[in-house]
Amino acid sequence: MPKTARLLPGYMVDRYRAWRALRFEKDRAWYARLAEGGQRPRAMVFSCCDSRVDAVGLFGAEPGDLFVVRNVANLVPPYAPDHAHHGASAALEYAVTVLKVAHIVVLGHSNCGGVEACHDMCSGAAPHLEEETSFVGRWMSILAPGYAKVSDTGSREERLRLLEQEAVQVSLRNLESFPFVKSAVDRNLLTLHGAWMDIGEGVLHVFSAETRRFAPLEIASA
Amino acid sequence: MPKTARLLPGYMVDRYRAWRALRFEKDRAWYARLAEGGQRPRAMVFSCCDSRVDAVGLFGAEPGDLFVVRNVANLVPPYAPDHAHHGASAALEYAVTVLKVAHIVVLGHSNCGGVEACHDMCSGAAPHLEEETSFVGRWMSILAPGYAKVSDTGSREERLRLLEQEAVQVSLRNLESFPFVKSAVDRNLLTLHGAWMDIGEGVLHVFSAETRRFAPLEIASA
Amino acid sequence: MPKTARLLPGYMVDRYRAWRALRFEKDRAWYARLAEGGQRPRAMVFSCCDSRVDAVGLFGAEPGDLFVVRNVANLVPPYAPDHAHHGASAALEYAVTVLKVAHIVVLGHSNCGGVEACHDMCSGAAPHLEEETSFVGRWMSILAPGYAKVSDTGSREERLRLLEQEAVQVSLRNLESFPFVKSAVDRNLLTLHGAWMDIGEGVLHVFSAETRRFAPLEIASA
Amino acid sequence: MPKTARLLPGYMVDRYRAWRALRFEKDRAWYARLAEGGQRPRAMVFSCCDSRVDAVGLFGAEPGDLFVVRNVANLVPPYAPDHAHHGASAALEYAVTVLKVAHIVVLGHSNCGGVEACHDMCSGAAPHLEEETSFVGRWMSILAPGYAKVSDTGSREERLRLLEQEAVQVSLRNLESFPFVKSAVDRNLLTLHGAWMDIGEGVLHVFSAETRRFAPLEIASA
Repeated sequence: MPKTARLLPGYMVDRYRAWRALRFEKDRAWYARLAEGGQRPRAMVFSCCDSRVDAVGLFGAEPGDLFVVRNVANLVPPYAPDHAHHGASAALEYAVTVLKVAHIVVLGHSNCGGVEACHDMCSGAAPHLEEETSFVGRWMSILAPGYAKVSDTGSREERLRLLEQEAVQVSLRNLESFPFVKSAVDRNLLTLHGAWMDIGEGVLHVFSAETRRFAPLEIASA
Repeated sequence: MPKTARLLPGYMVDRYRAWRALRFEKDRAWYARLAEGGQRPRAMVFSCCDSRVDAVGLFGAEPGDLFVVRNVANLVPPYAPDHAHHGASAALEYAVTVLKVAHIVVLGHSNCGGVEACHDMCSGAAPHLEEETSFVGRWMSILAPGYAKVSDTGSREERLRLLEQEAVQVSLRNLESFPFVKSAVDRNLLTLHGAWMDIGEGVLHVFSAETRRFAPLEIASA
Repeated sequence: MPKTARLLPGYMVDRYRAWRALRFEKDRAWYARLAEGGQRPRAMVFSCCDSRVDAVGLFGAEPGDLFVVRNVANLVPPYAPDHAHHGASAALEYAVTVLKVAHIVVLGHSNCGGVEACHDMCSGAAPHLEEETSFVGRWMSILAPGYAKVSDTGSREERLRLLEQEAVQVSLRNLESFPFVKSAVDRNLLTLHGAWMDIGEGVLHVFSAETRRFAPLEIASA
Repeated sequence: MPKTARLLPGYMVDRYRAWRALRFEKDRAWYARLAEGGQRPRAMVFSCCDSRVDAVGLFGAEPGDLFVVRNVANLVPPYAPDHAHHGASAALEYAVTVLKVAHIVVLGHSNCGGVEACHDMCSGAAPHLEEETSFVGRWMSILAPGYAKVSDTGSREERLRLLEQEAVQVSLRNLESFPFVKSAVDRNLLTLHGAWMDIGEGVLHVFSAETRRFAPLEIASA
């Protein structure tokens, strides 16, 4: 029994009421259908918890459109069926084998605090993250293999950006390590995609497996 | 190196361009400030990956407002500093100790596929989820202690709803097991909250630690 | 040493105690975080002292959201670095260069006593406001250039409304005269906005630089 | 003609619509009366622009209750009828001689950035604020006489708190320098009050002219 739980913060109640009055009423029939008939999202997104990046808004997703995992640094861990609690892997399994999504997008972003923590840990500047009890340190160690690739690059800023993009590539590679993902991809039932969002510029960069680079999407002219 | 990654699906590119032209342009200054000055969200939410529940929309959150974890069945695992990759725990640690959020909300919902999987697994109806290699089964075992409390209840529908609400309570209890959460709560720097959303009705129910029940929020009359 | 100060009026003490018991307790954690971590408001508002217009309520602002100047007729004076005490300019400088807000809104309103004083002074009907010792007269002379534009218009009521809207435009123009504002606007780090509130109708009108007019916001239908 | 003004930020439009739907509708008759019959506020408050302190909320003020000046550090400048644009003095003149308020409250607060700027400027730690072109510096020089009284006190934190409270006392003294204020006070038509808000603790401290100290208001027991 939770002992310290309190009623919802007042401002959230206010905002919910506004959502209810101004948004829900217009979508009521669709929500009723979705409740009755279940969800059938077309795509899954691995995105960061960061409050500045919202995949639902970015991709104009309507209720029912997007199955979204959000964790620190949008990481997919490697395939490891070891009894442990793997939240991201469970979501992946559910999306691919039960919901049968057609696309999985790994969405990284600029100014990522989790990636910065990984950078500082790997460069020796954050010993507290190396401790066994640091959840952030242990979690971000998934990205540690990516650090070696960027550690020689010029400025800290450049290294961080490259490491953020490594996070997307490491996750894509890890995705491919799940047998049920590989199987669906091989049968052309599933496609994998990587992208990286520049928060300040509002520009989405897309990963190309051919060039092994991220290139900015052209923005429609007004 | 990921081998099978493809460019972004065309409909997502279109949606992104619409977001860029219609939304980003209006918020450009704020995004620039957020990129430069970092995020400082007031609250954290544990929400489900489900495509029908979007905490950002529900709480009218603007860029920078809400730090969001999304995993199957909005679960917080118990405190376990055991070297493993704990995505939810890492996000929690980052939100409380680095970002210093003031509130954490666990947001459950109706028609939850993850909770249904737990129900079926615990009642013996889904042996494949009991296998060691089932990520969904292992992940949902976090909620298994909650099943005992609801297994005697009338209809399957009633049991599922109660188990969805148990998922919120189990997560709240697990939150309290993290030393840094307990410390912040004890010093009045952090409050914990539980809620459960009825998708079809569009009604948010709030957990009260006093009554140990979820009660629907009154909707403002016009 | 102030000689005549008295303890707070009893009704204010009562209201404070109610705020403390009913509002503060729920937001305690957030206030503690705001005190410790400092404010970081997204927007600044220039609003009137008028007791009938409250920007905080109108824009549903939570603690920490809105940096607010309130003076008679929501005026921004022109840029004038002349050693004098410029309260509004000091607030503007602090908001833009220290707090780095992303938006500045000038919020005018109907039935404005300050604007009416300006109208009567400029039309010769209020000679006492033309005296050097009239603070209201001197302050409202900031808006005097706007009077010429409306002096030919039909009824007194129409002239007052137009002059209230001129007050917003004059302030926007004066905002642009501050070098640090112009610089931030030019770099897309700051946006300027004008609005005018009809108190009796409860309708907010928004200024468009294209049409040079104020148009009422559509109110969402249920 | 303002050149760079843009339509209102989208989130403010959303928040306004929520205010309109959920708040205005309930108060519509009162707003209509207030628009038609004019405002008649009982009290005036000098408060800070700080986004964390909202006198309207703190004193549970309804539309029409409170005439509010907000400037950096809630300062009343000394009486100086010198042709210049004195926003605070104009508001004061209007409130006392036209609206005929019964009370004026100067409301200071903890963690005040304006007061901190004054402290650093007076102690020589912020030479840029001493420049003639610094609006914050010139404005905060109103409080400079107060710095001498606190400069010998122990810690920086203690000095800042005392200087915040000096800001209230300086403003009260300046209020008394206005002939129309003195006259109204002498005829028992107006009372002056000083208070200081501790943001983190949510405790209001009230100034006593007898003890020359600020004492916390007792909080009603639950």
